Amino acid sequence: MNWEIKDEVFVPDLITNNGNKFLIGNGYLGIRGTLDEFKKNEFVAVNLAGIYDQVGDAWREPLNAPNGLYTHIEFNGMKYGLPEVEPASHNLSLNYRHGILSRATTWSTPTGLLKVTSERFASMADKHLIVMKYSIRVDNKGVLKIVTGIDGDVWDINGPHYDDVLLQDDSDYLSAIGITHENKDLVCVKETIEKNFHTAEKVIKTGRKILREFTLDVLPEHEYTFYKWVSVYTSKDDGDYGNLTYELITKAKIFGFEHCKRDHVNEWEKKWKISEVVIEGDEEAMEALNYSTYHLHSIAPRHTDSLSIAARGLSGQTYKGAVFWDTEMFMLDFFLFTEPNVAKTLLKYRIDTLPGAIKKAADYGYQGAFYAWESQEGGFDACSDYNVTDVFTGRKMRTYFKDKQIHISAAVVYGIMRYVNFTGNYELILNGGAEVILECAAFYYDLLVKKVHLDQYELLDVIGPDEYHERVNNNAYTNRMAKYTFESAIGVLKLLLDSDDVSNLKENNGTIKENLKDIYESLSDKYDLNNLLTKYQDAANKIYIPEPNRQTGVIEQFDGYEQLEEVSLEELKTRLLHEKEYWGGAYGIATHTKIIKQADVVTMLNLFSQEYEPNVLLTNWKYYEPRTEHGSSLSACMYAMLACKCNMPDIAYPLFLKSAMADLSGGGKQWAGLIYIGGTHPAASGGAYMTAVEGFAGVHIEDGEIKADAKLPSNWKSMKCNVIYHGDLYEIKVTHENTEINNLGQI
Amino acid sequence: MNWEIKDEVFVPDLITNNGNKFLIGNGYLGIRGTLDEFKKNEFVAVNLAGIYDQVGDAWREPLNAPNGLYTHIEFNGMKYGLPEVEPASHNLSLNYRHGILSRATTWSTPTGLLKVTSERFASMADKHLIVMKYSIRVDNKGVLKIVTGIDGDVWDINGPHYDDVLLQDDSDYLSAIGITHENKDLVCVKETIEKNFHTAEKVIKTGRKILREFTLDVLPEHEYTFYKWVSVYTSKDDGDYGNLTYELITKAKIFGFEHCKRDHVNEWEKKWKISEVVIEGDEEAMEALNYSTYHLHSIAPRHTDSLSIAARGLSGQTYKGAVFWDTEMFMLDFFLFTEPNVAKTLLKYRIDTLPGAIKKAADYGYQGAFYAWESQEGGFDACSDYNVTDVFTGRKMRTYFKDKQIHISAAVVYGIMRYVNFTGNYELILNGGAEVILECAAFYYDLLVKKVHLDQYELLDVIGPDEYHERVNNNAYTNRMAKYTFESAIGVLKLLLDSDDVSNLKENNGTIKENLKDIYESLSDKYDLNNLLTKYQDAANKIYIPEPNRQTGVIEQFDGYEQLEEVSLEELKTRLLHEKEYWGGAYGIATHTKIIKQADVVTMLNLFSQEYEPNVLLTNWKYYEPRTEHGSSLSACMYAMLACKCNMPDIAYPLFLKSAMADLSGGGKQWAGLIYIGGTHPAASGGAYMTAVEGFAGVHIEDGEIKADAKLPSNWKSMKCNVIYHGDLYEIKVTHENTEINNLGQI
Repeated sequence: MNWEIKDEVFVPDLITNNGNKFLIGNGYLGIRGTLDEFKKNEFVAVNLAGIYDQVGDAWREPLNAPNGLYTHIEFNGMKYGLPEVEPASHNLSLNYRHGILSRATTWSTPTGLLKVTSERFASMADKHLIVMKYSIRVDNKGVLKIVTGIDGDVWDINGPHYDDVLLQDDSDYLSAIGITHENKDLVCVKETIEKNFHTAEKVIKTGRKILREFTLDVLPEHEYTFYKWVSVYTSKDDGDYGNLTYELITKAKIFGFEHCKRDHVNEWEKKWKISEVVIEGDEEAMEALNYSTYHLHSIAPRHTDSLSIAARGLSGQTYKGAVFWDTEMFMLDFFLFTEPNVAKTLLKYRIDTLPGAIKKAADYGYQGAFYAWESQEGGFDACSDYNVTDVFTGRKMRTYFKDKQIHISAAVVYGIMRYVNFTGNYELILNGGAEVILECAAFYYDLLVKKVHLDQYELLDVIGPDEYHERVNNNAYTNRMAKYTFESAIGVLKLLLDSDDVSNLKENNGTIKENLKDIYESLSDKYDLNNLLTKYQDAANKIYIPEPNRQTGVIEQFDGYEQLEEVSLEELKTRLLHEKEYWGGAYGIATHTKIIKQADVVTMLNLFSQEYEPNVLLTNWKYYEPRTEHGSSLSACMYAMLACKCNMPDIAYPLFLKSAMADLSGGGKQWAGLIYIGGTHPAASGGAYMTAVEGFAGVHIEDGEIKADAKLPSNWKSMKCNVIYHGDLYEIKVTHENTEINNLGQI
Repeated sequence: MNWEIKDEVFVPDLITNNGNKFLIGNGYLGIRGTLDEFKKNEFVAVNLAGIYDQVGDAWREPLNAPNGLYTHIEFNGMKYGLPEVEPASHNLSLNYRHGILSRATTWSTPTGLLKVTSERFASMADKHLIVMKYSIRVDNKGVLKIVTGIDGDVWDINGPHYDDVLLQDDSDYLSAIGITHENKDLVCVKETIEKNFHTAEKVIKTGRKILREFTLDVLPEHEYTFYKWVSVYTSKDDGDYGNLTYELITKAKIFGFEHCKRDHVNEWEKKWKISEVVIEGDEEAMEALNYSTYHLHSIAPRHTDSLSIAARGLSGQTYKGAVFWDTEMFMLDFFLFTEPNVAKTLLKYRIDTLPGAIKKAADYGYQGAFYAWESQEGGFDACSDYNVTDVFTGRKMRTYFKDKQIHISAAVVYGIMRYVNFTGNYELILNGGAEVILECAAFYYDLLVKKVHLDQYELLDVIGPDEYHERVNNNAYTNRMAKYTFESAIGVLKLLLDSDDVSNLKENNGTIKENLKDIYESLSDKYDLNNLLTKYQDAANKIYIPEPNRQTGVIEQFDGYEQLEEVSLEELKTRLLHEKEYWGGAYGIATHTKIIKQADVVTMLNLFSQEYEPNVLLTNWKYYEPRTEHGSSLSACMYAMLACKCNMPDIAYPLFLKSAMADLSGGGKQWAGLIYIGGTHPAASGGAYMTAVEGFAGVHIEDGEIKADAKLPSNWKSMKCNVIYHGDLYEIKVTHENTEINNLGQI
């Protein structure tokens, strides 16, 4: 495979989509795959991780930094740029092995062709650095004007987020400093350039732009090139951001473009050394899969030890830049298997936002920790009570995602426990994870109700993963995840209460006994640990988990699901009165039918497959799949993985490809009414990875050892991947006949 | 007062409204106040009590009998009738002391005036009999054609309900026998006439009509009169309905019109002797109040010992002819106070439909008795899951009246206990009432949930009286009524378990000890009575009843009501996008605000006022009244009664008048989209009576004695009423200064 995707014809209608598909990023920032001359109308964004702003009553959303790459040109007095001037040829290309975006565009001018090439990357070696090379060639001599600088007039969905953008021109440096509306945070962008031509520079400040203007007489056969170093810091970063922006690009400029690029490429190579998946016999799948994990790498937070990934990654402000259960349930495994430190960072974000989760619970009158459905800084829940607009009345519809989708807290617990189990490392537990688990258990315990005359605990009035059915009772997935939380809390409590019994801890956790005693001291001050153990054991025993129906084997998604109308997806669609109407809510077309938005029981069965007979897995897969819209990018991979567990890899295959191609194919919903909701789909990317590694290759843990129980699609000859388990790197090669697992030693 | 209402100008737009306002009836049937020549387009109806039919998927609804009063005339070849031919004068008049509807209409003809007078009544002496007198006078001679007979082409909302109407012409008798669609019930209408003129009769059968046609030369100064006797029986009546219809009108014709009328009037006089309320100083109120109770008398079932009253009485098929909580909570007191046998009949209907209530509960997976929200024959719940149509999409909206308005079962218990307490008579308890109460308690007990960590019982996901807020938790009214049910069950269980202790039973229940033993035997076979006593005592103790807020004194209508948006009724109305849009449901304009449809907490406080400090009553009245739309005719009287308890009779007064005038003023909603929902408002009538007697006169029971604690409106000089208590008739006279209660002895 050539690790490259291309767009060889310029199609204005694809500008938005290409912004996502050709995205580059390094976890600190993401740069949409737009062109150098584009502005906010073309959805240019240098999207920042973990910093948000709110204006008025509109949604709080992440910031886009001023765009330090902005460049346009004029030749003989005429501006050449897209989309305004039709090109003679155009090629946009992303090298996704190294996260380098290139463009080459030629225009016909009255005096011959004009060719622009550029190349950019968001440095993986220094996350605050963006580097660009920009070249122009002409067929005949003429007067070329190059305008490049910083465009502070950024694209916002609910902005403008900068009350002001300060523009500074300081010898070789241009700066734009945005001052945010809500918290007066500063976003500081500085650029400097190096050029292979000599001419006077004019600095222009216009509106929120600060630009250099060069006018020069150019000759054919000569390439006019400038290199650009852009640094981005915010007042939330440690250190003197003003100085740091300066120092970073000064140093980078001294090292030069090729040096910076080499450092950047090396970092990427390190990642692929572990994370590349090789598939023999299916180039398309291999490309799609590695392209998916490219996106995960591009948005992974490595510049901090506590941050998570937004549902649309760093592709813009959609979904409020908020963190959903997507991270723990769909993206985590990729990092856990290939870069556990990132997994730790993601989970650390949840540990650090525990106070936000406790506050959210308290606001609803609940005990414990109720994590945000759409988590922003500090665990603030960005989800609105009115998340959908009624297309018929234009009114906001009361939705219950924020208040009823209680399974989010269990997802956090699941992530932490999965980290512990995969790394064998208890540090997260010791550093706040134990409290998270206990508080999440306290949350579910508080919600448990029982009928007075029954000795069974229930969770009422919830929304499961299938959001089309709101306010249901005993959602199988939610109840099982709550039980999982109780079980995890029991594990933590036993560990704390009997800290001599750490036989299940690995040797390299040598200091854990001491640490456990410390944490025991501090937690036993706060909690009655023995009492909690009794309570959660009782809760885990008595919580009602819907069982397979004795006749049919089907597990009811929630109480009463079976009584809902049976209708085919096709017929249901004929009932739509408006193409954009909401299918769920109280009166949506799906609400009173068995059609579900996404994997729900199937997600539960995938997570807890070992608790069910194989025929139960198969029966439920077959029952629910035709009833699933797959209206979420989180759905296909769960069906694909369970299909693998049911030994149906060829049935899993198209669902896997759907996940792996989510961004490549540019599918998915781009607009909800007038609101742009497009962007990348990192959960689908993570789901594709999980399907390949855990589904097709069948990688799993059995009795503390890594195993692979491969079920390859018939067109695959072999698959090879690397997985880190308990600190060791394992190389796993599977074919239809053989499985080879090599421990390559500690990583 | 003159006991008469009149309509002296013919206004076509008032035809529908007058059909309700001028209704006559005798509990077996109601005849809308339409004119002799009207047909189904004018909503003519001879509405039958307690017999229903369903066609296709449309709502099941009560039957309208073929109209035996149909009559039209022609003079000199020209048809004279309303609304087609504009009259020279017109007068429609209802004597509501005696339930006699009269009309007098003159038309100008080319040869002078033509005058028609008619008079009709639904005999209170024999409930199957309708009697009419019809007269014509002319100014100049001419040829008169009289056409009279039976119109079987009846008005239906969801019909036609007769698969066929058999027409028979049998010497002096015409018959029309409708055969219903669903159950092949027969509705048999027979008529015969007597006339003071001689001419040949021609019988015409046309479509579903069978008509007599008389053509005669008429002279001025002579009145041409015929009398008509119509009998109505159905195959659900005891006996040979064919014979009965014949015998009844044969006998009636022999006795003659005046005799029949005298018998009818005498029966009405007997009723007024007890039930007339005399108000000195406020003729309007006195008329409105007695007009209200006229309606209650007209629809009271006296022809059977087990039947209830539909929410729109016998005014048509609206509200499916179904019985709601209206009967027990709003109409019962009038009958209990003035005609306890009718009260018994109403409650017997509930006792006899216990199997239907048990079936409804079982269908939902509940134990015990869940009474129908809209009860028809056998307790069948006519309420649809989709009771409202979305005006924006034309789609049916899922509503939860049927499945969540659980307070209906408690209303039944409340009615039975009120009967026992007011009559001192345990026969209802002994004849099925005990089981009803135990099964209703079992129903609520089954629904009780507790948070696992709290020792408090809750009722979740219900709808209280305020239907605009669906699926709420711990509705104060519902929880208190459930507690009342447990308390009643405890009372019944104690009576059964300790049947020697019947000291609280009156002497005239001499045989009760024996009966109690019998019933104990049969119930103890079926129930573990001691165990139930323990359970219901526990339930009554632990069920959560929302208490007055310590700061504000306000009782929260349900969990979270206080967090809803505060908005004025006026402002809320400005948010309407469509005048007929539904205010409730998931997204209605009221749903997420504090605006409520009708008295809810106030109803609870009115029923249990003795449990609260006076300032709590007042605080909550003042809090909730401005937040109440009074969008139901059940609302005003509850506010009026509680206002009296708060010693604010003049504030209660307009609310009282609103209830008393509900049918007189022709207010209330007549149409919901294209569906006619008009009709009489017997619950408002009953509410007006309760407000007068229990509110203004302050009649109540204290330590087993009848008392009156009058709070008269300032414009009233005195009020006099009679109330039956424990079998004795009491005359109660109250003024602003004095209260006089005379026991007139056993009734």
